[in-house]
Amino acid sequence: MTVNRQIHLVSRPQGEPSAANFKLVEAAVPALTEGQVLVRNHYLSLDPYMRGRMNEGKSYAAPQPLDAVMIGGTVGEVVDSKNDHFKVGDKVVGMGGWQEYQLVDANQRGVLQKVDTTHIPLSAYLGAVGMPGVTGWYGLVKIIDPKPGETVVVSAASGAVGGAVGQLAKARGARAVGLAGGPDKCRQVVEELGFDACIDYKQHPDVKSLSTALKEACPKGIDGYFENVGGIILDAVMLRANAFSRIAMCGMISGYNGEPIPMQYPQLILSNRMKIEGFIVSEHMEVWPEALKELGTLVATGKFKYRETVADGIASAPEAFLGLLKGKNFGKQLVKLI
Amino acid sequence: MTVNRQIHLVSRPQGEPSAANFKLVEAAVPALTEGQVLVRNHYLSLDPYMRGRMNEGKSYAAPQPLDAVMIGGTVGEVVDSKNDHFKVGDKVVGMGGWQEYQLVDANQRGVLQKVDTTHIPLSAYLGAVGMPGVTGWYGLVKIIDPKPGETVVVSAASGAVGGAVGQLAKARGARAVGLAGGPDKCRQVVEELGFDACIDYKQHPDVKSLSTALKEACPKGIDGYFENVGGIILDAVMLRANAFSRIAMCGMISGYNGEPIPMQYPQLILSNRMKIEGFIVSEHMEVWPEALKELGTLVATGKFKYRETVADGIASAPEAFLGLLKGKNFGKQLVKLI
Repeated sequence: MTVNRQIHLVSRPQGEPSAANFKLVEAAVPALTEGQVLVRNHYLSLDPYMRGRMNEGKSYAAPQPLDAVMIGGTVGEVVDSKNDHFKVGDKVVGMGGWQEYQLVDANQRGVLQKVDTTHIPLSAYLGAVGMPGVTGWYGLVKIIDPKPGETVVVSAASGAVGGAVGQLAKARGARAVGLAGGPDKCRQVVEELGFDACIDYKQHPDVKSLSTALKEACPKGIDGYFENVGGIILDAVMLRANAFSRIAMCGMISGYNGEPIPMQYPQLILSNRMKIEGFIVSEHMEVWPEALKELGTLVATGKFKYRETVADGIASAPEAFLGLLKGKNFGKQLVKLI
Repeated sequence: MTVNRQIHLVSRPQGEPSAANFKLVEAAVPALTEGQVLVRNHYLSLDPYMRGRMNEGKSYAAPQPLDAVMIGGTVGEVVDSKNDHFKVGDKVVGMGGWQEYQLVDANQRGVLQKVDTTHIPLSAYLGAVGMPGVTGWYGLVKIIDPKPGETVVVSAASGAVGGAVGQLAKARGARAVGLAGGPDKCRQVVEELGFDACIDYKQHPDVKSLSTALKEACPKGIDGYFENVGGIILDAVMLRANAFSRIAMCGMISGYNGEPIPMQYPQLILSNRMKIEGFIVSEHMEVWPEALKELGTLVATGKFKYRETVADGIASAPEAFLGLLKGKNFGKQLVKLI
């Protein structure tokens, strides 16, 4: 019997989540029925959206059920198949969850995608050439739509999404300015990812100080902002926003534990004729082919830089996830499962 | 010598404006030079945007200069002309300011427009078929873009802009819900303007109470919101906003005196994938012909309802304007100048 080690959510966090909300469970891998595919997951993706799913109550997606495998994107290899479209050895990307094996009814359209690892590493399909990359692409291209010479700011710039935003902005002739936590991340954002500047927000504990730093880094003001964080960072950016600037609202990690995060100056939306738009990339599947084509080409030709932080083994997933929420990761946070 | 009575701004308000910020001044009407037109203003339009112009400091428009005639839209009649395009007796709309006569270099394109008063009253060109009407049209049609069966909410619903938003929403098959101050205004919004419901915000002093009232008036949630006010009304609306809802941000009268008016729940922009867009109608002159065609046809055929509150004589303009800021007007606030 093959043992499948899984992480279940066993309780909902009150405020900040902890390791006690999760539990390692061993399950047997059942026999395949017709149409099914068994995947050995190689990497699990950890992403901030998972924090939202841990809460009860209304959001854009149903909450993660208790006592069930945590939701999550995975890449892996087909190890058994009773489906004509998949054969043993195929590399695949899917939503395999926090577990080592995934049994999929692969006749459902879109649940499992074959990927080509000739020029692109398997793990990149969870980052630069996966959901985080397309998320950055959508907000930048479809909402911010920067013109050459404009200035684009992105928070959590050293993360998988932020790194994509900045590099795609540079490719369009815009100035890219990042916000990240700590001097090491800021150095990487500028030196490795090629941003024009990066502000260490930890050095600027209030709106005024952060706004002054943004003024220096963005001498012509801010035309586009990709929001991953919320709170005082959003306020400080809005104080430097130009007329007709655009904000793509992708995440508000500062409010995930239920803290109030008011926007202090909504009147700037009017006086600067701004556009602010929230989005969830999974609702825009129509752009994925175009986005993945650009991202895949950039990665395959070595023009797109990214880093990965890799935790080892399914048992390490909860701690790695809690670290991600605190910004301990560098680039894309993965868990290696094999 | 013809005496031209004018209202000047003589000081800037500290917080709430008062009559002492204005002064009645008598000036002589100078002789016309080639190309000029002299207009006897019949009506002056008073509008909330003027409050913003009274402040020093950066906004989307230059501040109103001190010791000069207050800016304002006017309709009137040509009483003298040294310009081939205008003759005595022509009815015109322009930015004549708070004064009885207006001397215009009418060769500048767009400073003076002839209007047809056969089927549309002259004063309507300052309201339903003027800037307020086009403002409502732009936010509703170009930003909210309601589908039949959707619900559109507008604050300051009994005002000239709000009344246009609701009636244009109804014409597009949407449910129109207003917010207005007091039972008389609410009755007019429903009975005269044809809204489906109107909430007296004065009966709901906090977000929770207002949000409950909105839930009753909008059983299917809110798909579009036309914002004239800001503050807790915006918060309450956002708590009832549907996925993919749109907010057209046109005014934030609650913050005009410098009070903080934070948006309490910006995370709803993300969780509901909302779009919020600020706009100023004078920056979208390309839509005016289309908007005025629809509004003019509705007014000329009696299908569009509006009210006017008319103050008498230029000397009454400051008090009428202060009343407008406190919501004392019913529909479009005008000053009759002749």
